[in-house]
Order: sequence, then structure tokens, then C-alpha cells
Amino acid sequence: MTTEATTLKGQPLDKAALESMLRRRMFYTPSFEIYGGVSGLYDYGPPGCALQANIIDIWRKHFVLEEDMLEVDCSVLTPHEVLKTSGHVDKFADWMCKDPKNGEILRADHFVEDVLETRLRGNKEARGQKIEEKEEADAKKKKKKTKGQEAIKLDDAVVQEYEEILAQIDNYNGQQLGELITKYDMKNPATGVQPTPPVAFNLMFSTSIGPSSNLPGYLRPETAQGQFLNFAKLLEFNTNNMPFASASIGKSYRNEISPRAGLLRVREFLMAEIEHFVDPEGHKKHGRFQEVEDIELSLLDRETQLSGKTIVRKVKIGEAVRSGLVDNETLGYFLARIHLFLKRLGVDQAKIRFRQHMANEMAHYACDCWDAELLTSSGWVECVGCADRSAYDLSVHAKKTGAPLVVRERLEIPKVIEEWEIEVEKKKFGPFYKKDGKTVENALMATTQEQREQLAKDLEQNGKVVIDVPGVGNGKVEISQDLFRIVFRKRTENVREYTPNVIEPSFGIGRILYSLIEHSYWTRASDGGDEARGVLSFPPAVAPTKVLIVPLSTNKDFTPFVRELSKKLRSAGVSSRVDDSSASIGKRYSRNDELGTPFGITIDFQTVKDGSITLRERDSTEQVRAEEDKIIAAIGALVDGSKTWKDITAELPIFAGQELVER
Amino acid sequence: MTTEATTLKGQPLDKAALESMLRRRMFYTPSFEIYGGVSGLYDYGPPGCALQANIIDIWRKHFVLEEDMLEVDCSVLTPHEVLKTSGHVDKFADWMCKDPKNGEILRADHFVEDVLETRLRGNKEARGQKIEEKEEADAKKKKKKTKGQEAIKLDDAVVQEYEEILAQIDNYNGQQLGELITKYDMKNPATGVQPTPPVAFNLMFSTSIGPSSNLPGYLRPETAQGQFLNFAKLLEFNTNNMPFASASIGKSYRNEISPRAGLLRVREFLMAEIEHFVDPEGHKKHGRFQEVEDIELSLLDRETQLSGKTIVRKVKIGEAVRSGLVDNETLGYFLARIHLFLKRLGVDQAKIRFRQHMANEMAHYACDCWDAELLTSSGWVECVGCADRSAYDLSVHAKKTGAPLVVRERLEIPKVIEEWEIEVEKKKFGPFYKKDGKTVENALMATTQEQREQLAKDLEQNGKVVIDVPGVGNGKVEISQDLFRIVFRKRTENVREYTPNVIEPSFGIGRILYSLIEHSYWTRASDGGDEARGVLSFPPAVAPTKVLIVPLSTNKDFTPFVRELSKKLRSAGVSSRVDDSSASIGKRYSRNDELGTPFGITIDFQTVKDGSITLRERDSTEQVRAEEDKIIAAIGALVDGSKTWKDITAELPIFAGQELVER
Repeated sequence: MTTEATTLKGQPLDKAALESMLRRRMFYTPSFEIYGGVSGLYDYGPPGCALQANIIDIWRKHFVLEEDMLEVDCSVLTPHEVLKTSGHVDKFADWMCKDPKNGEILRADHFVEDVLETRLRGNKEARGQKIEEKEEADAKKKKKKTKGQEAIKLDDAVVQEYEEILAQIDNYNGQQLGELITKYDMKNPATGVQPTPPVAFNLMFSTSIGPSSNLPGYLRPETAQGQFLNFAKLLEFNTNNMPFASASIGKSYRNEISPRAGLLRVREFLMAEIEHFVDPEGHKKHGRFQEVEDIELSLLDRETQLSGKTIVRKVKIGEAVRSGLVDNETLGYFLARIHLFLKRLGVDQAKIRFRQHMANEMAHYACDCWDAELLTSSGWVECVGCADRSAYDLSVHAKKTGAPLVVRERLEIPKVIEEWEIEVEKKKFGPFYKKDGKTVENALMATTQEQREQLAKDLEQNGKVVIDVPGVGNGKVEISQDLFRIVFRKRTENVREYTPNVIEPSFGIGRILYSLIEHSYWTRASDGGDEARGVLSFPPAVAPTKVLIVPLSTNKDFTPFVRELSKKLRSAGVSSRVDDSSASIGKRYSRNDELGTPFGITIDFQTVKDGSITLRERDSTEQVRAEEDKIIAAIGALVDGSKTWKDITAELPIFAGQELVER
Repeated sequence: MTTEATTLKGQPLDKAALESMLRRRMFYTPSFEIYGGVSGLYDYGPPGCALQANIIDIWRKHFVLEEDMLEVDCSVLTPHEVLKTSGHVDKFADWMCKDPKNGEILRADHFVEDVLETRLRGNKEARGQKIEEKEEADAKKKKKKTKGQEAIKLDDAVVQEYEEILAQIDNYNGQQLGELITKYDMKNPATGVQPTPPVAFNLMFSTSIGPSSNLPGYLRPETAQGQFLNFAKLLEFNTNNMPFASASIGKSYRNEISPRAGLLRVREFLMAEIEHFVDPEGHKKHGRFQEVEDIELSLLDRETQLSGKTIVRKVKIGEAVRSGLVDNETLGYFLARIHLFLKRLGVDQAKIRFRQHMANEMAHYACDCWDAELLTSSGWVECVGCADRSAYDLSVHAKKTGAPLVVRERLEIPKVIEEWEIEVEKKKFGPFYKKDGKTVENALMATTQEQREQLAKDLEQNGKVVIDVPGVGNGKVEISQDLFRIVFRKRTENVREYTPNVIEPSFGIGRILYSLIEHSYWTRASDGGDEARGVLSFPPAVAPTKVLIVPLSTNKDFTPFVRELSKKLRSAGVSSRVDDSSASIGKRYSRNDELGTPFGITIDFQTVKDGSITLRERDSTEQVRAEEDKIIAAIGALVDGSKTWKDITAELPIFAGQELVER
């Protein structure tokens, strides 16, 4: 399952070095750290916060604006009844075990995974095979726990069994996980004791709304429900046109059992979620599908996983839909759009795959689901889910509340329906059957068209019919012709009413952000050669800050130029920061490469003389020199993507002098 | 206290008509409405959501980018200990009464306010005086409750007493509110019974973090604490430069006792908060104060309110700071910047005032505070608070955790300090005083410089001293010269260490959004004259959508032009929507005026012939006609504020033809 993590340039990823850099540059930091921190809660510092805002901005342009989605912002606090109806109160849970000796609480699937991976590592060691980076790092992290588990050789058959279990680890329910724990005699390495059988732990944070504590509620575990509850209003806002999508960006909350994976598993997280409402008739075609059908995706389907493998196939999405691998065009359209979005952010194309959910793994509401997974130092991480929720949510809320969460569509060609109808002679029927009246009537009305055709014949022949009514008399009830009629009638329907299906692309922004950082990270040898310097090669549109302004020294002559340039960049809508500290230019640029800032402008004595400035590009460290306005225009074009750095070096004179001071 | 609410054009504000329009256009809607709703929780529909995003965008540009603030995004879930230290667990409460008869829970200050206002209204009626709009509306709303309370004449002295109480209603604590209820024999109109004395009700939502329920926590009631806890890291990120500000945009939660004022009092709300950290020495000067000192603000100071009045004075902020009315430049600078921000949003300049908090009203952490209040149909509403929190928060968290939340500043001129120092002879001192050793030593070390000078003399003269040590012997303890020394010494300090003070501008985005809607609303007579049509005159930069594209009819020839135009506007960064419904052009524009969309483009048969389109301006309903590219450029300039509509009508030919179809 594990794969050696690499940097953008294919170097082995030194995760400790990366984490220390992210911490030093305040991309993110554990919340409440001076109080000891709380696991699964993180604060974003200035660069993390700006990176997040840029990802959201691109998301909004790529999805909401591009497709005229209806963006809404709904409450996080949600009353019990809503989440009871949606199924979350009963089913939104993970499986949890307890160590009876030290009371430690373990997430059951993670526990099984950890134990089997440790045994496989021990087996490799015993056989003298190479242990991969990530495995080694894991082993080191868990060192105190894994004593006595190492270097034991396993039978080939056992290795295969373990690997097959791991390939479908997400497919087991609590009972099955419990059986695996018993069957393979898994013990908590910390105590040497087998944990208790898994029990369900609901992942929602609960609270109480209002002063009298009589309205129990939860923090929403997803942003979807608010969109469903507003469906009728949104449809009206969209002047009753179908299909359409709503979208929402906001925080959701899951009380994870024991989060220990940094930004990849947190208790409070930003989600961006789309609910695309579509007519279930006509196999969910999508009007813009032909725009994306040639896009190739890496797919890992359900069957492959169930066979214990994780082999990915490259398939054009058009082909995947035609062959039925992906169920319908709308689902396929969004998978392709998700792929394009991740590409636009700068995610490494070799580190994306779309994995289909297995039957037991799917959320309680889903009928098909694919996850966009990104490869990181923690393995493949689910970053976007794309589920077909069918009509589940709208149906259950409509049933519970009586609200008409449906589409009523005027039929161009009215539909003519011919069928057997039953008319009960109300005045006589009730008095005749007395207390059984309603039961008998319900049984009569519940008959099928075929049954009614037969009943009509019986009625004509015998002047009465006999039907089954369980619980009344001997279960057979006779109904005579003066109590009801059966007629074959034609009627015309002008309106079709249906409950839309929902395709839901759902984005975990924090996971995307972290994966993107790993995919953008690499190191370059410093000029001195003693120490590798970190670089985050974010695309300009994604980078937290676009430009670093660096005056050559603290000389006061530079100040007006710095101020003027900041102002001009601000007017051009380009975010910049000034570093006028006394550190060397090289040090300042190197600090800045760690922040992922794509461009640097140096202000030197030549600037004071003729107003020219140099522009440095982060990845190549090449520089060009020109007058201020030309440089600002170049930056604008680089940030909005209309020009590349290569275009700029062809247009503006290369400047080599500065490299001298970078040492 | 109440004032007649008016529209942008000075018409009396018909609140019911406005609310029905906002609902119809889905600006916002009660959350979970199909489940009966939950008071104090609202969802924003597409126009409300876009309006909110635009306000946030302008806020970010006006504050964060303009002043290089460090934006962070911190956790909402907050452990108990943090909010215990900050004082919120003990003090963040409202006063709540209970009706002993029907169990109704009342917020004490609102109850007192309601009863007194009802009595004042009854008095006016009894005297045959005019009752103002708002009062009438209030009376209508509370009709069922206020029976039997009306039309009772009050003595002039009583009227004055009531008015004085209302002017300082925010200044009473629970006990005082209880006394008012008893003194004026206030009864719950619903039952005719006096409610129980006020008790404190903590406004924080509580929850439990983690699976074992052993970490109690709350939803943050403000976004400030996360910024304080990260102070040391932020200072380092800012390369130790002072002063600087952090900023945060995010949701906060307050479990309001009985919220009934729409968006003005909600349980979940978006805040934008700035924490400006400043050196307390030198009276909190601000480097950019001279840029704002001539800005005139409407101020309602503490003394005026305490004298029972609500008279506002127009004062230049420079003058207000010089006279000491506003405590310091930094506080004054932010008041002026807040004023400019509200102006930029399009808030009515005649409906802003800055009100100073009274002593009892101030939050537990504040040492001075001014609220920017906006006048709405619910009276003056606090929309922005600007508090000087002094060093309160950083000090308490540092004390609790031991984290150094301080600034260490290298002194340019080292500070030479000469003072009396005491050195205890540890080896002898303890054994001599035995169990009292520590107490005696502490008392000795706690002596002031003056006392030490005297002690030094005593020691020289008598070879011993006598000091007060409460609780040891008779409270006087003799210390001989072999146990300690007192010396007058010179030492040099190179570093100054201090805890910064905090100026905190804090914005309730939902309240600003709602007030802005009221300030932007007006009605114009329809062409037919039968019905007034609502208009929301948002400035182009604030408006939810900038352009409505209206094809003249559903003719298919228009479709490619509509599609092309949408695409071009999108590339120009201008949000647009298409209304290709079959409604008349006039109806579509009128629908659109209700959404506050500033510009409309009509595509007609002339467009198909020569590519020209008409541009309509919402407020004047004037139209110009030109080729597509010129119109798009004009819209760009109108949205970014570089041109006004007047400029455009001077540049492009006026078009009158379309008005014919608007009927």
C-alpha cells in the first residue's frame, strides 16, 4: 500500500524537513498550542490562510461562476431532527475499540491496518528485503510501540491474505473488523493486550440550542443538508429550470476518534460542496459532457479492489461512461471537472487517482461514489468525493416534513393514462363494515391494475368480489356491487412531478491544501553547497503572495520606491510583501522561496538613478530588468496565466548582476 | 429612542414590503424552515451570499491588504481552559428572567426596555400625540401581549425617568435590572405576572471534544482568542516588528436568550476582527493618523448618555483625540477607518453614529470602547465595536500558560538602573527562621526602594532591622546583618520587555449587511402606476451580481450572443446572470432592481444585425447603446469605480427606444 514519497523534482521527500519549514513559515500551527494543543485542530497562519483563500477563489471561478451555480451559506448548528431524518444520528459513525488494560481508544480500521502493516514490515526485514522510506518512517514513529513485533517471517500465503485485507480495508463493518482482530490475534503493541470488540461511535459534535436546553443539536458533519432543505426555494430562484446546482463553502465538524495525521485528519475543516440536481429519467445525461469526454483519468474501480489489487487504469471519461464503468454522464462530467480543477491548482498529475467506493464503504446515502485521491507521504488521501446520492435526501426530508421537494414540469405532450379506477360508495361502505371499514377500503384501494381487471370481471359475473384483507374475519372479505364500482378510464396529465437525483462533488479544502504543498515542494542546493533550501513551486495564481519587494539594503533612499511600488501592485490587484530586514538578499529570497512567492523585485542604486527594477522568478532564479511599468505588466500577465516566464525572458532583457549578491 | 425609518430616498420605510421582497428574492431565509425553523439561525440564498462575499472582499482590501495585516484562520472549537482564562466562562453572560406562570424565558434588559417603551407609547396615545412608524409596528407585533397596557397617561416626571433609564439601558447589571422590575412593578404582558429576579445565563454553546468526553469545550464567542494565543508566532512572522495587526474572518456563536430581530440578533454569525498590537508607552500614537485626522465623525459620548440624552456631536477625529474624548490616536485612527469602510459599502452617511460604552456596559476585557451604530427600522444597531482591550488578554494567557506573550526590544540606548538590591544569605537564613523562612524572605524581598533605603540606614546603625511580617510571631520580625545584605547597585539593561496593548475593531458582517440593505432600499412608482417597485441601490462593487443579460425574447437567434457576452464578462471578472424567461423586459428588469443588480444589457434584433447592445443603469433607468466591447469596458470602469454613470452617458449615445417595452 505504501509508496515512497517524492518531491516535485523526484527527490525523496524528507517529511521532517518539510514540516519544520511549514512550521517556521507559519503555514499552519496546532490550535491552542500554548495550552498544550488539542488533537485534530489547527490554525492557519498568514501564508496558509492566503493559500486557502486562493484555492477557494479558484474553486469558485472554476465551478460556481463557470456553471452559474447558486451559492448559499447555511447554518452550521443543526437541530437533532434534521440529522435524525438524514440518517446521520443513526449511521454517521466510526468503529472504536478500547484497550482494556490502559483504556486507550483506538479506531478499529486504523488499528487493523497498523498491525498488519507492521507484520508485513517485519516479514520484509526477516527476508532481508528493502524497506521503503515511508515504512521506515512509520516504524520509527511507532518505535516504542512495535518492539517485539519486528523481523518475523510470514508464509507467502499469509502475506497475500494481509495484502488483500489491506486493499479493501475500507469495506469492513464493525463486526468484520472484530473478526479480523480475533482471527489474526491482533494486540495493542503498547500493552500486548487485545482490544475490546468494535462499537459504533457517532462522529457528530452535539450541543444544545437556546437557554432552556430543550433543543438538542449538532455541528453539521457536511454542508449538504442546508442545500437540500432549501431545494424548493432554490428551484424557484432558478425560475424552475432544471438541471441546476447549488454550492456552498463552509466549515464542517467531525469528532474524529484519534486524529494524528496533521491537516489530513482534523475535527474542524473547510468544505466546498456542490449539489447538482438532475432529472433521474434519461440516464442523467449532461449538456456539456462532450467538452470533457476526451479527458483521461486514472481509475481504480471497485472490482479491482475487491480482488485485492490497487492497479490503476488510464481511461478517457467518455469511454468510462460508455462502458458503464462510471454510471452516468453527469457523474463523469464532474469527475473530469474535478480533475481539471486539481490540475489548475498545480497538483502533480502523476499523483492523482479516482477510486470507486466498495459497497460497504459507501456512505448511507450514496448509490455510487468515486474519490479523487492524492498521493502524499501518508499514502493515497481522499481529497474530493463525488457521490451519486440518488433521491435519498430530498425524499426522506419531504416524507418527514411534508414539504414538496419535487420538480413539477409542464409536459409538452400531455400524457394520456388509461387505467382501472375504483370508486367507493362512501355513504354505504363505512356503515356496512363498521370498525373494519377503513381496513377493507385500504385493501381494496391497494389492488394492482391486474387485480382490478380480474375484479371487474368477477363483479360483472357475480355482482360481488372477494378480496384478501388480513386481520378482518377469516382474512377474506366479500364486497357487493352496491358498495363500489370499478371503471376503466382515460385521463390526461399535463404535469409531471418527480424528485431530482443529486450528484455531489465534495471537496476537503484542507486535505487538498496539504497535498498541494507536498506536490509543490522540492529542495535546491544552496550556493554554499552546505544545506538544501526548500522551495514551494505554487503556480502564481495559487501562491499566497505574488511578489516580494526587496530593497538592496536599509538605505533610506530606497524607501519611496518601495512604497510607490507596493501601491502600484495593490492597484493592479497583485498581493505583495516587503522584506526590508537587514538580512542578505540571498537569505531574503531563500526565506521567500520557502513561502512559495513566485516573483521577487529588487530595488537597488540603479533604481534610484533610472527607475529600473529587476524581477526574479522563483523556480529558475533567472532575472530580468526593465522599467517599473513593464515589470508590473509582466507580473500581471504571469499571475493571470496569459504569459509564461519563458515569454517574459524573451521580451525583457535578462539581468545577471544580482546573482553575485545572492551568496 | 425610536426614530421613523426611511428609505434611501427619504420615503417612509415599509418594512413588511421590504421583508417580503428579501424573502421572494432569497437574500436570506430562516434555516431549517421546512422543519419549523430555529430562532436566530438564517441561511443566505444566492444574492445574500454574494453580497456577503463582496462585503468581505472589500473589508479585506480596505483593512488587511491596505495595512499589511497578518490574516489567520483559527479553530472555532475551543477548549474550556482557554475561555476560562479569558474570562468568558465566568463573565460572558446575559441576564435572564423566567415567568413563573408560563415558564417563558425573557432577556432582562429587553424585558425592561419593552415594558417602558410600551408605557411611553400608551402615554402618548392617552395624550393624543403622534405615534411614530416604528412604535406602531412594534405595537402591532406585540399586540397580543400589550392588551390592557395602552393609553394610560403618565406624569411628566415619570416620562423623564423612563427616558433616562432607556438612554442608559445597557449600563445596568442584573441586580439593578431586578430592582427596576420591582420598583416599576413590571409584569410580563402575556401572563400579568412579574418575572423572577435576573440570573446570569452564559451565552456560549458547549460541547465535548474527543471520544471519551473528557475535554469540555465551547464554540468560540468571538474570533479574538485564537489571534492572542498565536501572538508570539505572529510577532516572529512579522520579523519582530511592532506595531502590527492580525486579522481574522470567521464564524462565532452566541446562544442568545430569545432572538427575534432577524439578521440583527442571531446565534451563528460571521465576524471580521482585527487585533492591532501596540506599545502602551508613548500614548499609543499611530503612524498614519495624520491621513485621517480631518475626517468628521458623529460621536455620542459616555457622559451624554449618563445624563439621559442621546445627542450626537459632529467632531473631527483629530480634535476628538486632542481633547481626550477619544483616548488615543490608534483608537481614533481605527474609528476613522471604520467610518471610511462603511462609506465605501454605501451605508447612508446620515445613519451612522459612534457611541461610547458606559462603564458597566463594557466587556470584561475592555478599557475603552466605541461602537459604530447604524440606524435601521429596529433603531440604532451596533455593527462594529472598537475596543481598547489593553494588555488584558495577553497577560492572562501568559500568566496561565507561562508562554512569553511579550515583545523584547533591543534598547538603542541601554538603560542604566541604580537601585537597592537585597541579597539573602541562603545558608543561614532558612535554618534560622525554620518553617517561617520563606515567609520572612518574601516579606523582605517585597520591600520598596524607599523602604530599602531606610533599612540600609537601620542596618548600618543597628546591625539589624525589624520588618512587618504578618502571621509570623507578633507580626514584627528582626533580621540581623549576618543573614542578609542591602547594596546600592548600578546595572545596564539592553532589552526592554513589554506586553503590547490591543486595539480591536470587530465587525458583525450580518448586521452590516442587513443595515446596508435597509439603507439601499427605495421604491419607485411603476409605469402603470398601480404598484411601487422595490429597488436596492447597492454600489456596483457591492452588488451581488453586476450585470443582468436580457434577450428581448426567447428567439433562438439571440442565444449565441447571450453565450458570447456571458463569457466575455466572465473573462473581464464581472459577474453576470442571464434572464431568458418569457416575462416582459420590464418585468425582468424590475425583478432585477429588487436584486440590486446595477446594470442590464438587452440583446435585440439590432444586436443580431450589427452587434450593438444597450446598457441600462438601475437607478436612473437610463440606457446607452454601443458595440459590445465598448459596453464591456464601460461596465469594467463602473464596477472598479474609475467612472460614474454620468461619465458613461457623456461618452456613449443615449438610447431611448427600449423604454417602450418596459411597460
